[in-house]
Amino acid sequence: MQLSSIPTETKNRALKSIAEAIEKNKGQILKENKKDIALAEKEGIAKPLIKRLALDDGKIKEMVQGIHDVMKQEDPVGKTLASLEMDKDLVMYQVSVPIGVIGAVFESRPDATVQVACLCLKSGNAAILKGGKEALNTNRILIRLMANAAEKAGIPKNSLQLIETREEVKEMLKLDQYIDLLIPRGSNAFVKFIQDNTKIPVLGHAEGICHVYIDKDADMKQAVNIAFDAKCQYPAVCNAMETLLVHKDMAKTFLPRIAARYKEAKVELRGDHKTRAILKGVKAATEKDWSTEYNDLILSIKVVSSAEEAIGHINRYGSKHTESIVTENPETAYAFLDKVDAAVVLHNASTRFSDGYRFGKGAEVGIATSKIHARGPVGLEGLVIYKYKVLGKGHIVKDYVGKNAKHFTHRKLDKKFGRK
Amino acid sequence: MQLSSIPTETKNRALKSIAEAIEKNKGQILKENKKDIALAEKEGIAKPLIKRLALDDGKIKEMVQGIHDVMKQEDPVGKTLASLEMDKDLVMYQVSVPIGVIGAVFESRPDATVQVACLCLKSGNAAILKGGKEALNTNRILIRLMANAAEKAGIPKNSLQLIETREEVKEMLKLDQYIDLLIPRGSNAFVKFIQDNTKIPVLGHAEGICHVYIDKDADMKQAVNIAFDAKCQYPAVCNAMETLLVHKDMAKTFLPRIAARYKEAKVELRGDHKTRAILKGVKAATEKDWSTEYNDLILSIKVVSSAEEAIGHINRYGSKHTESIVTENPETAYAFLDKVDAAVVLHNASTRFSDGYRFGKGAEVGIATSKIHARGPVGLEGLVIYKYKVLGKGHIVKDYVGKNAKHFTHRKLDKKFGRK
Repeated sequence: MQLSSIPTETKNRALKSIAEAIEKNKGQILKENKKDIALAEKEGIAKPLIKRLALDDGKIKEMVQGIHDVMKQEDPVGKTLASLEMDKDLVMYQVSVPIGVIGAVFESRPDATVQVACLCLKSGNAAILKGGKEALNTNRILIRLMANAAEKAGIPKNSLQLIETREEVKEMLKLDQYIDLLIPRGSNAFVKFIQDNTKIPVLGHAEGICHVYIDKDADMKQAVNIAFDAKCQYPAVCNAMETLLVHKDMAKTFLPRIAARYKEAKVELRGDHKTRAILKGVKAATEKDWSTEYNDLILSIKVVSSAEEAIGHINRYGSKHTESIVTENPETAYAFLDKVDAAVVLHNASTRFSDGYRFGKGAEVGIATSKIHARGPVGLEGLVIYKYKVLGKGHIVKDYVGKNAKHFTHRKLDKKFGRK
Repeated sequence: MQLSSIPTETKNRALKSIAEAIEKNKGQILKENKKDIALAEKEGIAKPLIKRLALDDGKIKEMVQGIHDVMKQEDPVGKTLASLEMDKDLVMYQVSVPIGVIGAVFESRPDATVQVACLCLKSGNAAILKGGKEALNTNRILIRLMANAAEKAGIPKNSLQLIETREEVKEMLKLDQYIDLLIPRGSNAFVKFIQDNTKIPVLGHAEGICHVYIDKDADMKQAVNIAFDAKCQYPAVCNAMETLLVHKDMAKTFLPRIAARYKEAKVELRGDHKTRAILKGVKAATEKDWSTEYNDLILSIKVVSSAEEAIGHINRYGSKHTESIVTENPETAYAFLDKVDAAVVLHNASTRFSDGYRFGKGAEVGIATSKIHARGPVGLEGLVIYKYKVLGKGHIVKDYVGKNAKHFTHRKLDKKFGRK
């Protein structure tokens, strides 16, 4: 049995066993994790990395819940995406199949190890996992538990492998003959390093430089609420706003109101000269601010003369991740949604909605800013591709060329591929 | 007006103008082409390259017909792929959009320049074209005619650009900040060079090592017809068969019959020892033969003990392009279609059907063997990606977390994005 042909029930049974194994062995997992943390502290590894590395009861509970979420998702493999009668008794089916081998590279974050492994299993992909050496003991026990549980449930051996060599991540990045897609999980710098050092396609994003544009026709209450939510609801994440763009006709009334809200929340503001003419005492924003992802309670503000200028600024400085406009003018809104080049564009809604769970995808592979394959919040659908299956009855091409050539019917069908 | 927002009518009008301009200036195009050929002959460029470079009345007619085919294709941009009510008055649409900037790299083949430029125009992508210096005069006039005709019809200036610098193709391959997708057209070696020397995603294939497997339960007449068609109908192309696999129980009866047909067609056979025990005088196939794309009237033959062995051989030596099985046993057929890892798999049909035109796609971008984005014969759908457009009424994420959190409805809709 090949991984791509495993029935949905077997895959879900394996996921259930994995969840049980993790719950059952919680004590041992936490023990191994403590070893890693002690070692990391001894080696003076940065605090945020250690924080991402550390597991506790709550994180293990989330891990297990995450596995159940993956179980509930529809199996993305084996769907007939299209079918076409090429000619009588010659039918073409386009059927979804696993991509093949997914390489997952982690910096700290043993919880991501489990999530990506389970997403790969559900989508019928083999997973090669490479964790940072700071999480070696934790990853080792997690992978062992998962691989054993999966194998007992009927998943082929070696579908899930941990690379433990001492070599740097760089070695894995050279395996473009064997790995079809890379999923990196870690800091922005880590993802950027991966993207810059491999020929394997990478699913993900390095930066989230997101904007909210408050148009001259914005509703004041919506503008204040959205600008506040996008910055303050959770500033450390990729879909939080980093730069606020305000139309000059709104600036005088809107900026003092939102500044009062930001002041309460202790947001540091950096503005262009027009902003600073209205908001006294605000620090000057430099060119560098427009392309900085603060991931913190810091915000750059720019006053613009038109929606066109806002769109231009976003397409120049944004990271093609998530962008929002607040306006009551549908003309302006549709132009913005059309012309801004980003994976997710929103009208009268916070950038923070750009997320797999909120988009109804359940488990999330990540948010992609690339321009091919999958874009924006990516669910299991990002881990499959398709294959054309053609069923004939002895058809040869010679009959379709030259004199008396047969003609293709090219009739769209609504037929699912499968045994009759 | 941005290229991505151009209405379908404008794009089709531009394509019509391009077709007219090429027809009207046929004489001058052929004149420029003659310059290139003369220069190429003087420089001693290889014959097959010169053949691909040369234009004539017939090729120009095909070029113009190709443009009309692209006009007839449905506009791939602006389709609503999915819509979801996230909550009351908060609706998410997944809408197809152009990829952005397509880099097209050619070796000879000025006809490909026109085809790819028109496919990019129809799909709303900007195209940066880089032809070989052997086709410089031809490409220069073609691009000038196309760019002028397109601009007059309302397509933004510079949507179509020819790179004429003296630098090697290598320079263009470094532009991963500006180019979203590369389409190479030329010899296998040329495509391989592109794939090996860029971080930009490449749509295409380097090799087409395709197999036909004649199962023990094959219908003899179908087996002979398909094995002959797959090799001989047009041996120089990527979807022609290079290796024939025959089940041992069929070998004694089937091999002499097909060998007689191949003899008539002057096909050189190279066999493994079991084949040579049946077909006397056949040359021995070496390990290298199993991974060679002859593109010629040469065929390697191997006798296998089972369908499993055939599948194993294909997954080891094939190029994930196109593979076919001939059998009357549905069990064996479905296993083959499932387990063979290739873009196109066929049952009782010739590998030569694996082609954009035969798959009803009209114009073809190329045949892709990569595992992400688009696979197999790729039409205009390979030149688009999607974008999520979310319409709210002041929605913020804070309302969906913590105590008294609002819940997402996540109700699938069947709604198209657009102005009401």
